[in-house]
Amino acid sequence: MRVLVLGADGYLGWATSMYFSIRGYEVMGVDNYFRRGAAEELDCTALVSSPDLDRRAAIWKGASGRDIHVRIGDVTDYPFIRGVFEEFMPESVIHYAEQPSAVYSMMDREKAALTVRNNLLSTLNIIYGVNEVVPDCHIVKLGTMGEYGTPDIDIEEGWIEIEHNGRRDRFLFPRQASSLYHTTKIQDTDMLWFYVRTWGLRVTDLMQGPVYGIQTDESVLDPRLMPNFHYDEIFGTVLNRFVVQGVAGYPLTVYGNGNQVRGYLNLKDTMQCVYLSVTRPAERGELRVFNQMTETFSVNELAERVRDVGDRMGYRVEIQKIENPRVEKEDHYYNPRYTGLLDLGLKPHYLTDEVLEGMFEMVEKYRDRINIDAIFRGIRWR
Amino acid sequence: MRVLVLGADGYLGWATSMYFSIRGYEVMGVDNYFRRGAAEELDCTALVSSPDLDRRAAIWKGASGRDIHVRIGDVTDYPFIRGVFEEFMPESVIHYAEQPSAVYSMMDREKAALTVRNNLLSTLNIIYGVNEVVPDCHIVKLGTMGEYGTPDIDIEEGWIEIEHNGRRDRFLFPRQASSLYHTTKIQDTDMLWFYVRTWGLRVTDLMQGPVYGIQTDESVLDPRLMPNFHYDEIFGTVLNRFVVQGVAGYPLTVYGNGNQVRGYLNLKDTMQCVYLSVTRPAERGELRVFNQMTETFSVNELAERVRDVGDRMGYRVEIQKIENPRVEKEDHYYNPRYTGLLDLGLKPHYLTDEVLEGMFEMVEKYRDRINIDAIFRGIRWR
Repeated sequence: MRVLVLGADGYLGWATSMYFSIRGYEVMGVDNYFRRGAAEELDCTALVSSPDLDRRAAIWKGASGRDIHVRIGDVTDYPFIRGVFEEFMPESVIHYAEQPSAVYSMMDREKAALTVRNNLLSTLNIIYGVNEVVPDCHIVKLGTMGEYGTPDIDIEEGWIEIEHNGRRDRFLFPRQASSLYHTTKIQDTDMLWFYVRTWGLRVTDLMQGPVYGIQTDESVLDPRLMPNFHYDEIFGTVLNRFVVQGVAGYPLTVYGNGNQVRGYLNLKDTMQCVYLSVTRPAERGELRVFNQMTETFSVNELAERVRDVGDRMGYRVEIQKIENPRVEKEDHYYNPRYTGLLDLGLKPHYLTDEVLEGMFEMVEKYRDRINIDAIFRGIRWR
Repeated sequence: MRVLVLGADGYLGWATSMYFSIRGYEVMGVDNYFRRGAAEELDCTALVSSPDLDRRAAIWKGASGRDIHVRIGDVTDYPFIRGVFEEFMPESVIHYAEQPSAVYSMMDREKAALTVRNNLLSTLNIIYGVNEVVPDCHIVKLGTMGEYGTPDIDIEEGWIEIEHNGRRDRFLFPRQASSLYHTTKIQDTDMLWFYVRTWGLRVTDLMQGPVYGIQTDESVLDPRLMPNFHYDEIFGTVLNRFVVQGVAGYPLTVYGNGNQVRGYLNLKDTMQCVYLSVTRPAERGELRVFNQMTETFSVNELAERVRDVGDRMGYRVEIQKIENPRVEKEDHYYNPRYTGLLDLGLKPHYLTDEVLEGMFEMVEKYRDRINIDAIFRGIRWR
């Protein structure tokens, strides 16, 4: 079976490519190195410098004996991506090819416009490419739990039945996000849902929480296969960032009162969730939505967990509450449902102390590469 | 008071510019002539050829003694539109600067991409321009009733309180449209709503039904001031098109069984609604939504009304049901609420036989200009 991974250079994209490759899938990975270039430009490169995709595919071939095909190009360039569809004829396409940072999308107008243009036009091109070339191909789209925001009602998995004035209908669950990046993901979903209804596409939307973790079962084969692990304010997710701060002796920066609760998952579980979605595809004309997370934590809980494990390992980890640079509710109700992927067979890797210790140990190996200045710059939403 | 009209060359934009001008407002109109150029290219120009904006402003000055300032440029070009904000310092901005045709958005990928890029980046630039230059400026955004689609519950004015598992919260009313164009309007609203919450902008979103009519109290002063009246499949709204078909002896093309119900309003009422919104602005941090329509009709009812009036006037009007080129429900529940603008003081011009006779008479004057080939081409959604 042929799986096309768009955004294959990313934190999730490269790990996903290897995950499918080792399981016997024919994999083609596409990237335009946008995030790599932006991180260079903003002086916040990943903890470990990764070889480019062609080089990593060669390293992977040496380690596993398997091929990952690589094409470098921009998914917003339709002739390019249509050509990729025609050449590879994928049965599944995994769409990670978006500007992935909430902070980046809030930095200035140019980056806001880039986020809108990139995320919506890449999604539109995938829709057109699938419809014109491989209409039965299953689109697996990475959404985010952040699309829902923090409503004062339980969060269902994508859909809700609303009763109103004695009548009922089923709708996409209401979404109102707290960054422009997250808003583009809402917009993507609306666009996909329109074409699912109109053209009968098959789509799975994975509403993913923040991911943490630094290794997968495949990346351990060679250190040069490590995911792009970011720990900076712009591209790093919170728990990854906290572990690096712990190693570097930089106080853990908790925004506001730290009561913000989110759903999290291990990088290894992202692999499982995407794999389960591909192997059990949505039907034609179906937009299937899963909430992709395995447990919830407040920011304070994460900071305390990292501090406690770090302290036991001999780091002296401090927690520092700072004025929240974002505009978000700090005290809120949060009760998402996330049973769909468990029903498909997901076996979660929970956030144990051992997992945190493993992350500390990995980061310790690269501590010389930590750029303290990248950790916190206080980029404000207002 | 200074009112900036974006998309001032359009069917609504020019009429709006005159409506505010005659009432003593200082008006600046902006357009990039996109629709004008697209109509040329697709061989479906308006019934009456309008002079360009500079020329029309001069004609208006002669007819009314008042100025309308004109700037030609693209709202997706941020330096341009920011310059307009800095020069004019508007207190209200009326945003018509979108690709306005559902059919156009469904013709091919390039037109789909243009629709997404134009509609979202124009809205983003207005948001940034207002926030950076005139943060107290009121944004009046034209949405469409089509954003709601045809849900099986009553349609509220923009917002709904949802009770779910014993808890309640208020959300934007669920929206699922039946074209990409309408979907970009949903996406616009989500973007505006994000920045309203984050930056405290003041926004009114007018969810407008299809507009009909060919004259306003201002345009009658000189025939060269007439709105861009389109009767073609791509840029024409249904009732305007039917009247032209009646005059031309072209059977009225009813898509599918014709039971599709929508909310309609007279062009003169669009003027009133926009004016009422500007004079009673939304608060800072408020996204105010009105459903802008005055009565509902099925397509069959509209066709029969046009046929009956046309026949009485000596035209021989036929109705022809054709296979629906769109993907939409033909039999559906439809019960929208539209009291907000009435509460603000809207005095509707309902669709009387006299109104239809007036439209027939105006179109008759220009019957030599009707391009039969533009009326129906059967552009399909699938």
